[in-house]
Amino acid sequence: MYYIGVDLGGTNIAVGIVTEEGKLIKKRSIPTLRHREYQEILKDMGELCANIVKEEGIPLEEVASVGVGSPGTPDPVNGILVYANNLKFHNVPIRTELQKYINVPIYLENDANCAALGEAVAGAAKGYKNSVTVTLGTGVGGGIIIDGKIFSGSYYGGAEIGHHVIVADGEQCTCGRKGCWEAYASATALIREARIAVIRHPESGVAKLVGGDINLINAKIPFDAAQSGDPVGQELVDQYINYLGIGIANMINILQPEIVVIGGGVCAQGDNLLNPLKEVVQKNVYADGTLKTQLRIAELGNDAGIIGAAMLGK
Amino acid sequence: MYYIGVDLGGTNIAVGIVTEEGKLIKKRSIPTLRHREYQEILKDMGELCANIVKEEGIPLEEVASVGVGSPGTPDPVNGILVYANNLKFHNVPIRTELQKYINVPIYLENDANCAALGEAVAGAAKGYKNSVTVTLGTGVGGGIIIDGKIFSGSYYGGAEIGHHVIVADGEQCTCGRKGCWEAYASATALIREARIAVIRHPESGVAKLVGGDINLINAKIPFDAAQSGDPVGQELVDQYINYLGIGIANMINILQPEIVVIGGGVCAQGDNLLNPLKEVVQKNVYADGTLKTQLRIAELGNDAGIIGAAMLGK
Repeated sequence: MYYIGVDLGGTNIAVGIVTEEGKLIKKRSIPTLRHREYQEILKDMGELCANIVKEEGIPLEEVASVGVGSPGTPDPVNGILVYANNLKFHNVPIRTELQKYINVPIYLENDANCAALGEAVAGAAKGYKNSVTVTLGTGVGGGIIIDGKIFSGSYYGGAEIGHHVIVADGEQCTCGRKGCWEAYASATALIREARIAVIRHPESGVAKLVGGDINLINAKIPFDAAQSGDPVGQELVDQYINYLGIGIANMINILQPEIVVIGGGVCAQGDNLLNPLKEVVQKNVYADGTLKTQLRIAELGNDAGIIGAAMLGK
Repeated sequence: MYYIGVDLGGTNIAVGIVTEEGKLIKKRSIPTLRHREYQEILKDMGELCANIVKEEGIPLEEVASVGVGSPGTPDPVNGILVYANNLKFHNVPIRTELQKYINVPIYLENDANCAALGEAVAGAAKGYKNSVTVTLGTGVGGGIIIDGKIFSGSYYGGAEIGHHVIVADGEQCTCGRKGCWEAYASATALIREARIAVIRHPESGVAKLVGGDINLINAKIPFDAAQSGDPVGQELVDQYINYLGIGIANMINILQPEIVVIGGGVCAQGDNLLNPLKEVVQKNVYADGTLKTQLRIAELGNDAGIIGAAMLGK
């Protein structure tokens, strides 16, 4: 049997065919054109699902399901996307709409949860029953896998690990609270701090790398500056990793997964991120100080969401 | 069938007989005398279990199991208490020792997890599948129930919810980290802040209530002062409830249980604690601002641990 996975984003809709083992064998993507009515968006999505299957010569009887990973708040039981800010979707009946175009069982889940499931089935957390996947991007996304299944709390709104406060009354978070982990450990947060550093320290290596233009700063710049020996860059990196590590240690103290997987653009830093991060986490875990939980960089990149969405039907 | 529950504390060992419905029908307690060898302590515990059953005229065939709730780090699979600081226990074979005195299946769990299970089976969280129980005492203890079962992570060391950092680089916690929830939301933390307030504000209502003697302060004093209109007392209470609420909102954003149960001495405040706490939590939960998770005061008091320990075998 084959499993179709859909990653519904604000910019693109990506659809892939996934094997029982979680291998992505074909992928296609179309623009979401998100300002349209949901019926039009879901028509494109449904037709893309149907077409990709046809193109691969897979009979519909061999398609087990379509799984959709969406931003916002899905109601997986009823297949309804309750709310997605980016898409201006409100109580959209994803399941019944999609079945007009491809009549197989339709599953729906939050995209961060799908990414976590993807990494658990076929990525960095493969072989582990309990994992937490953290994605460091515009925000801090997260997914919790317990006993091989997505854990999202009692009303599908849990696992919002980016929105646990690590600095009471701290930096403003986009969610309205102050001091969320996301406001310290997202790429956005690192960029914010780097901009402040450039303004304060125009003589720094960080400032030189962008010719003093704070708009040119991305999450890679502070790491580059640190590696070239710039103390301001090093401090930015150290501080960022410290906050990242505090949140990861919090997750370990609460959930104690076998493995924490870290994804998102910042992870391109590889061991430059992972090694100091492990030290911070080690210092911060509870109990006898033995860190039993593994830390690893995500392996599937953007495909994690598609693969995880597909595996919802397995 | 009957279930025996044991609450192994640093001061007392409490043993109770519990029905299948989680009703405590008989309870007895003896001093732990914790500086003794573990063999002696477990002999007393085992004999007390055997005796209480005999006294009630219950035949051994009707005793399903003995469950032990202990501080520290138990290994529930092997029935070994890996580590308990209070008791100077290190890799103590609770199961095999106890079976010398009462030969039934023996279960072992962390005491805070047992209290959470007790509240879930027969207390404030009865009827809910997913709950978090927070106990506000010397520390902040916690237990997580998912699908009616204790969730303690991959290596039985999770659910240490008191040891998630809510103020990075904040107050020193007994665990070695800085800024743990426990360092802000325990009774100990409230007493610490009240002592500081008495030193800073000798004219305050809080100070008057204890005649200026900081050693007389307990967790009730700031609440009493607040209720009599003392602004210093009110600020202490507001600040305490704010930190308590931040941590509870964190738990909801991560775990989204159906209910959070709050236990421990501070809960004697009842609605004076619960009502403002609900407001803080409501303001701090993620998503559309609807607080689906219930908040409730614990119902079983110290019996929660015995009942939960007994229910380990069910």
